[in-house]
Amino acid sequence: KVIWTLLVTILGYASSLPVGDDSICTTEELAKYSIIFTGKWSQTAFPKQYPLYRPPAQWSSMLGVTHSSDYSMWKKNEYASNGVRDFAEKGEAWVLMKEIEEAGEKIQSVHGIFSASAIPSGTGQTSTELEVHPRHPLVSFVVRIVPSPDWFVGIDSLNLCEGGHWMEEVSVDLFPYDAGTDSGFTFSSPNFATIPQDTVTEITCSSPSHPANSFYYPKLKILPPIAQVTMVKLKKTQLGLSAPFINPPAKSNEVIDSV
Amino acid sequence: KVIWTLLVTILGYASSLPVGDDSICTTEELAKYSIIFTGKWSQTAFPKQYPLYRPPAQWSSMLGVTHSSDYSMWKKNEYASNGVRDFAEKGEAWVLMKEIEEAGEKIQSVHGIFSASAIPSGTGQTSTELEVHPRHPLVSFVVRIVPSPDWFVGIDSLNLCEGGHWMEEVSVDLFPYDAGTDSGFTFSSPNFATIPQDTVTEITCSSPSHPANSFYYPKLKILPPIAQVTMVKLKKTQLGLSAPFINPPAKSNEVIDSV
Repeated sequence: KVIWTLLVTILGYASSLPVGDDSICTTEELAKYSIIFTGKWSQTAFPKQYPLYRPPAQWSSMLGVTHSSDYSMWKKNEYASNGVRDFAEKGEAWVLMKEIEEAGEKIQSVHGIFSASAIPSGTGQTSTELEVHPRHPLVSFVVRIVPSPDWFVGIDSLNLCEGGHWMEEVSVDLFPYDAGTDSGFTFSSPNFATIPQDTVTEITCSSPSHPANSFYYPKLKILPPIAQVTMVKLKKTQLGLSAPFINPPAKSNEVIDSV
Repeated sequence: KVIWTLLVTILGYASSLPVGDDSICTTEELAKYSIIFTGKWSQTAFPKQYPLYRPPAQWSSMLGVTHSSDYSMWKKNEYASNGVRDFAEKGEAWVLMKEIEEAGEKIQSVHGIFSASAIPSGTGQTSTELEVHPRHPLVSFVVRIVPSPDWFVGIDSLNLCEGGHWMEEVSVDLFPYDAGTDSGFTFSSPNFATIPQDTVTEITCSSPSHPANSFYYPKLKILPPIAQVTMVKLKKTQLGLSAPFINPPAKSNEVIDSV
C-alpha cells in the first residue's frame, strides 16, 4: 500500500497545450465526481461459456486517470502499451502506473489517478471518486474481464467539460475490448502471446468471426452492454485541496484468477 | 403548423465526411433519446431584477438539431447566424429553420430537427425526443431566455457517441449566453441593436463587468446553473422508421413576450 502511494507522488497542474477550443473549463475550477462501475456480465445476458468456477466471472479493480489530450491510456485500433497489456492480461497495475507517472512528470498531461476495488462476480457495483482539472478534463480507465486472455472494458478520454462547464452526469454502456496481446479465444484460454502484437479491438457478437469466440452470438445485432459506468458531479468541490486528488488503488485481489 | 412540416422535409442520411476517429457509432444504428429540459431560473437563485410580470420569467420553445461536425448551430466566441439572432432576440424560428434546412440539403450535415414546447415560468420542465445517426451523432439546441435582449441557453455539438456506442445518459448544466446582437444589459432592456455585431459570449456573474447587468453577482464565483438538460437513450430503437425522425416545433407561444 505504501508503495502505491509513493508511486503516485506525481501529477503537475500546469499544462502548456490546450485540449481544444471549447473543452477547457475556463469558468470553473476543479471538479470532483463520483464514478460508479456496474458489472452486467450475467449468465442470462451472456450464456455462452459463462465462467462459473476457477475462477467465476468477475471484474478486476478499476485503474483510471484524469488527463489532458497529451496523454492516452489506451485507444481503439492502436497498440496497447506494456502497462495496458499487463493489466488486461493479468490485472497487474505496476507498469501502467509507471507509464501514467511518467506522463505526469514529463509532459504534465496527467492530473490524478483513481482506482476502485474489484467486483468478485460478473454483476455488482464498485465506485470511487475522481477529480478533473480545467486543463485535464479527460477521463480514462480500464477494468479487466476475469477470466479472459487479455480482455477488458474501459473508457478512453471522455471529456467531462462541455461548453466551459463540468458535466452534471454522464453514463456510458461498456463493451468488451481485446488488448491484442494474447491470442486466446475464450474466457479460459491458456496464455498464448500474440506475436506480433495486434491493436486494441472491440469484441462484438460477430468479431472475431469464429464460433469458438466466447462473445460470438451470430443471432444478435449487437451485444448487450457487459458493464456500465456513471459519473456524477459532486455538489461541493473541496477547493481546499492543495494536492491533486489521489486515490491509491486497492491491492489487486485477483488472486482467485491464478488458482 | 403545416408550414413547419413543409419546411422540415429535408435532411439526408449520407454524409461524406467522418466526424472523427472514435465518434462514429459504427457498431450501432440510429438511436433515439428522450431530451428533458429543466428551467432553474428561480427568484431564489437569481434574485436580481427577476422578471415578475410583463412578461414574467419564462423559456421559449426549444429548437434543436442532430447533425455532423460539418454543421454548427452556434458556437461560443463566434458570430451568431441570422437565424440564431432572430431566435435569441424574438423567439422566431423561421430563419434558423431555413439555415438548418439548407445545411441538410447542401452538405447533408443534418439528420433531424426537434423541438419542445415553451415553459411559461422560469422553473419547470419540457421534453421531446430526438434521433441521432452514426454519421450525425451531435446535438445542438437553443432556448431563448424570456424576457431578455438576446440571451439564450443551449448546447453546441454534444457528441452522443462514445467509443463507437451511443451514450446511455448525459446531463449538462446550462448557463446564459449573449447572442451578441442586441446591446441590452438587463432582462427588460429595450431593443437596441449591437452594431457591429459581437460574438456569442457566455454571461457570467462577473462578465459583462457592470453592476447594471442582470446576472452581475460580484460575490459569487460562478452563477448557479440557470437550466439543465438531460438526454436518456430510449431502450427500443424503432428501426422500422424509414424517414429521419422529425418533430415539428410547436407554434411559438411566446406572445406574452410582446404584451
